[in-house]
Amino acid sequence: MSKIRRYSIGTFMDTGAVISKLPKETGEIPYLKRIQRMELKKSDKEPQEEMVQRDEMVYHLSFQDRIYGLGENVRGINKRGWLYESNCTDDPNHTESKHSLYGAHNFFVVDGRETFGVFLDYPGKLILDMGYGQMDEIRIVPQDWNLDVYILEGGSILEIVKSFRKLIGRSYIPPKWAFGYGQSRWGYQSAAEIREVVKGYRENGIPLDAVYLDIDYMEGFKDFTIDKERFPDFPKFAEEMRKEHIHLVPIIDAGVKIEEGYEVYEEGKKNGYFCKDQEGKEFVGAVWPGKVHFPDVLNKEARKWFGQKYQGLLEQGIEGFWNDMNEPAIFYSEKNLEQVLKKIKSMKSRNMDMWEVFAFRDIVNGLANNPKDYSSFYHEIEGKKICHDKVHNLYGFGMTRAAGEAFEELEPEKRILLFSRASYIGMHRYGGVWMGDNQSWWSHLLLNLKMLPSLNMCGFLYTGADLGGFGSDVTEDLLLRWLALGIFTPLMRNHSALGTREQECYRFTQTEVFRNLIGIRYGLMPYLYSEYMKAALKDEMLFMPLAFVYPEDAHAREVEDQLLVGESIMIAPVYTQNAGGRYVYLPEPMKLVRLKDMEHIETEVLEQGHYYIEISLEEVVFFIRPGKIVPYTKAEQYVKEIPAEELRLMHFEAEGLEYELYQDDGFEKDYENPEHFKRLGVK
Amino acid sequence: MSKIRRYSIGTFMDTGAVISKLPKETGEIPYLKRIQRMELKKSDKEPQEEMVQRDEMVYHLSFQDRIYGLGENVRGINKRGWLYESNCTDDPNHTESKHSLYGAHNFFVVDGRETFGVFLDYPGKLILDMGYGQMDEIRIVPQDWNLDVYILEGGSILEIVKSFRKLIGRSYIPPKWAFGYGQSRWGYQSAAEIREVVKGYRENGIPLDAVYLDIDYMEGFKDFTIDKERFPDFPKFAEEMRKEHIHLVPIIDAGVKIEEGYEVYEEGKKNGYFCKDQEGKEFVGAVWPGKVHFPDVLNKEARKWFGQKYQGLLEQGIEGFWNDMNEPAIFYSEKNLEQVLKKIKSMKSRNMDMWEVFAFRDIVNGLANNPKDYSSFYHEIEGKKICHDKVHNLYGFGMTRAAGEAFEELEPEKRILLFSRASYIGMHRYGGVWMGDNQSWWSHLLLNLKMLPSLNMCGFLYTGADLGGFGSDVTEDLLLRWLALGIFTPLMRNHSALGTREQECYRFTQTEVFRNLIGIRYGLMPYLYSEYMKAALKDEMLFMPLAFVYPEDAHAREVEDQLLVGESIMIAPVYTQNAGGRYVYLPEPMKLVRLKDMEHIETEVLEQGHYYIEISLEEVVFFIRPGKIVPYTKAEQYVKEIPAEELRLMHFEAEGLEYELYQDDGFEKDYENPEHFKRLGVK
Repeated sequence: MSKIRRYSIGTFMDTGAVISKLPKETGEIPYLKRIQRMELKKSDKEPQEEMVQRDEMVYHLSFQDRIYGLGENVRGINKRGWLYESNCTDDPNHTESKHSLYGAHNFFVVDGRETFGVFLDYPGKLILDMGYGQMDEIRIVPQDWNLDVYILEGGSILEIVKSFRKLIGRSYIPPKWAFGYGQSRWGYQSAAEIREVVKGYRENGIPLDAVYLDIDYMEGFKDFTIDKERFPDFPKFAEEMRKEHIHLVPIIDAGVKIEEGYEVYEEGKKNGYFCKDQEGKEFVGAVWPGKVHFPDVLNKEARKWFGQKYQGLLEQGIEGFWNDMNEPAIFYSEKNLEQVLKKIKSMKSRNMDMWEVFAFRDIVNGLANNPKDYSSFYHEIEGKKICHDKVHNLYGFGMTRAAGEAFEELEPEKRILLFSRASYIGMHRYGGVWMGDNQSWWSHLLLNLKMLPSLNMCGFLYTGADLGGFGSDVTEDLLLRWLALGIFTPLMRNHSALGTREQECYRFTQTEVFRNLIGIRYGLMPYLYSEYMKAALKDEMLFMPLAFVYPEDAHAREVEDQLLVGESIMIAPVYTQNAGGRYVYLPEPMKLVRLKDMEHIETEVLEQGHYYIEISLEEVVFFIRPGKIVPYTKAEQYVKEIPAEELRLMHFEAEGLEYELYQDDGFEKDYENPEHFKRLGVK
Repeated sequence: MSKIRRYSIGTFMDTGAVISKLPKETGEIPYLKRIQRMELKKSDKEPQEEMVQRDEMVYHLSFQDRIYGLGENVRGINKRGWLYESNCTDDPNHTESKHSLYGAHNFFVVDGRETFGVFLDYPGKLILDMGYGQMDEIRIVPQDWNLDVYILEGGSILEIVKSFRKLIGRSYIPPKWAFGYGQSRWGYQSAAEIREVVKGYRENGIPLDAVYLDIDYMEGFKDFTIDKERFPDFPKFAEEMRKEHIHLVPIIDAGVKIEEGYEVYEEGKKNGYFCKDQEGKEFVGAVWPGKVHFPDVLNKEARKWFGQKYQGLLEQGIEGFWNDMNEPAIFYSEKNLEQVLKKIKSMKSRNMDMWEVFAFRDIVNGLANNPKDYSSFYHEIEGKKICHDKVHNLYGFGMTRAAGEAFEELEPEKRILLFSRASYIGMHRYGGVWMGDNQSWWSHLLLNLKMLPSLNMCGFLYTGADLGGFGSDVTEDLLLRWLALGIFTPLMRNHSALGTREQECYRFTQTEVFRNLIGIRYGLMPYLYSEYMKAALKDEMLFMPLAFVYPEDAHAREVEDQLLVGESIMIAPVYTQNAGGRYVYLPEPMKLVRLKDMEHIETEVLEQGHYYIEISLEEVVFFIRPGKIVPYTKAEQYVKEIPAEELRLMHFEAEGLEYELYQDDGFEKDYENPEHFKRLGVK
């Protein structure tokens, strides 16, 4: 029995998060108590202390309570013990002391003494103190008190999540080729360079379905353009790649370059589609192209216009996009840079003391993503001028919605790949997210795992991290271990940053191991694709913490480094360097499956309990739950080659049981067609 | 049978690392092969690739080889799989992709196909590629080929380490009170504030032996001064604190403020004791006090002079110091700042493109610890002018040696507490090290554990990390868990940075738990102090990886989150948030000891094997090895109060066996006096 109640505080602005507007409840909000209290504000620098009033919603946590959700964020699956701030932020250092990443995902479930879900539909900055200030208190502080609060109840966490997912609508479904392995790097300069990458994969027999184009493919970083010198005949090149079964996936950035004669700029300017400053002039930020305007994707007409711009690339043979820099990231604004330079010029160099030099450094570093800039431009939403900082967290959503809505019109019969860096709940209907600019850190391999179920709770099913890590230099063993997790994530993309060690698999010594590991992804595709599609169509989670599936098992509730993937599989990847294995907890008897490739599969039945499992760099290990089946096939070089027939089955205690297989052509949208659902039985 | 051979390449400069100069071997260096090879140098930014010659020493690693050592560094106990650079660096972000921390500790042991140790006695920047570039290769690249290479062989890792430790001389021994718990914070402004801290501890019955004074106690950050307004009568205040059994430990920074009339500056200048630039003028850097000169602590007379300056504080009742900023950290140099500001002033603000703004930001951030600055000043070493970058890694050693040598003269009968941030092997004879400016990250709790044995290998026994973390905001559970490790580290200090959450134990809710946990440190003092003293006097390790003690146990060789502490105890602290326990591997049967405080001790005998052990936030768990004894006593409020008599014993299968207890007055230096060694037997 699940129940959702909506409470509205103040003047609510429709964010687009939910698809069915519930009637407004009256009376007190259950669980959360709105209180005012006085707080002593102290500072190391100021001797005087002052009392300030805090207006907040609180929930008293008991010892055993755990908190799940919050989508894309640092720290654990259990979010208890930290302060999060929903504030889409371009910050490439995802250390555990950060409060915000790229997404704003205000849904969480408390489980323990009481079990309930909370969704705070609020587009501005929101503090979610999950037992940081006081270990026994959740504290919720929006910037202003205009928000919708949804309270969800149900028989279990999974039930609550499912009813939330119904509320927010069906998750985005990508084309099937987007479940193939993709290679990316910031720095691929030309068609010739991309050809080399494809050659590196194909010659080494390492599967590949996509190459991602980072900012370098554009002419002067101008959205929807292609540099003609480095890509002399782009449609032909895209065609050549398609023949190799490679899909090119270009990046689209939020900022539109200010350049006379550049069509997108001229159109946007003429029609007033860009965000404006207080005086009504177009706001000038700077991002990759230099000075830009930001399309007002929260304005319906501007959004429609911006979405239509993707058509040009679709016509040149492109079938997928990633939307980036859409928090939006701002390297600096024209006005702020002027002020900063003025201030610097007034500094007396020789007599600066150390604090002045620090201040100097801080203002320079403060040029990027400056809160003052975010509060100095405006959107026009249904005729109203609304300051960006009130709706900041909707920007990435708006940009991706622009593309998604356009694709519905431009390609009504075809799925187009689309994912974004910034996001808000609701955007999951239009595209996926990747986990942003992570680092080649072992800790980020584990963070990748931990974000998966939290993102699924918030509707984001198509997701994955930059495998091997974006920033910093990868090591061969880190890439191998990370791929062994990436096999299971819908988006399986290796991506790295300019200036870091080259990270394409064929550049390392153990080419055969890379071939085999990625091959396993293709071999498991019948299962992985079926589970994805079923999760999307039934509003279910693809990645589940053990706590959700075995709620009565006290140890399972604590496990933070294993996940259930769909109905049959539990994964437990190795995430520490130089480790030859890891501890694994089996909440019930399971069959251990050990693969070096799809032809060499060993299995072993294990009883419920704790194990130390040896897992070499060359191996993938997963576990099959009792009564469950995993259909698989042989490894292939690209998704299209995967045979639909002659599937084999791995299973554990599943005699007489069946598996629901989902099979379609992988690009059409008749998702619910009963012909796509097949049943495979174990005799 | 252990054997050490010294090979000398080029012109070797005596660093002071070893105490007995071995004769020079002739012939080829065993294990390491010196080779030249050509390498393709690629860059994302430059289309052309170029061939460069690399001159290096290499060792071919086999699959099973592990690498131990390298002292203070990021990553695992097994250092394989990363590139380290010995280059003392003030960098407060100890993420896994960093190559250098504050120390330069060029000793490592390879264990696997062959077992041997290598010490590279080299004072400049040194690349130690431990299987990063190629997974199967160690690659050693100094800046120039003037170094001593020691090759060590022996029957076991522990034997090799012991013979290395003999070579480099006995580790520093602090006064016994320095094993008590200490509280520190950057930001304690005055005597009044420190009194409040002491009161907070004493009133809550939480043990405390020391309060550390960060830079704020000084007058204008001038070394060896005390701000008279905020500390009106410092000797009296020190006396007052001593009566409370609190030792004040002031910080001393490397840079000496340029200020006319300031004694230290005037003396140094007059005698030419500061480092000079190429033209022979005093080099001007800037650190906390603003513009400073750096005392030339590599010059014998200057070192002696600087050491004698500590006398003033000794005379005011100080018995311990921490030497900081001695990499040396340089916020900026006068010359470089001028150039940077000139460059900035020439920038055309409005037309800067994004790359120019990045360059602008980079030059500002590049002001600190700039390699150009390090190569622009000089030391005078035995009459020779030597560029700082050739001997960079000796600076912190020199500064600490200055103090240590002075203390021998000034206080020949008394131990003075001394530890440093920057270090080089050899410095371990004069003082300890703390692990620098870490963060309130769970990953740094584990890093703390991992650094302990590596530092011990290099002679640094007196060490510990800033418990709770220096930078970022701590959580109550992190502090509790970190203290449960800190109980076992010789330096047990809670330290935090200006602007972060206040971190004194009494500020949190679970005061009783803090009291109990820190009390356990005092209860275990008879054991912990004995083991420290024996390790120092016998050139042994205090913290040992399981791999060293159980070399035949394949699983023990992999364990990276448990340590042996002395002869009797194995620790396995919890280092993940919201975890109610952890996995522990027992390489032999052991007795689990579970304490809430010294009066509530539960034990359980466990067989060899893998366990999941529940450990609540209120508990400390450790394990006693078979045939071993742990003497303990009751918890006290400060070290002096700990009774020498009436010790109780925990033990496991030790009937008829004895424990060697070390007891002395805790401040005199007659370490070897046989009266200090007592035998406690289990009947």
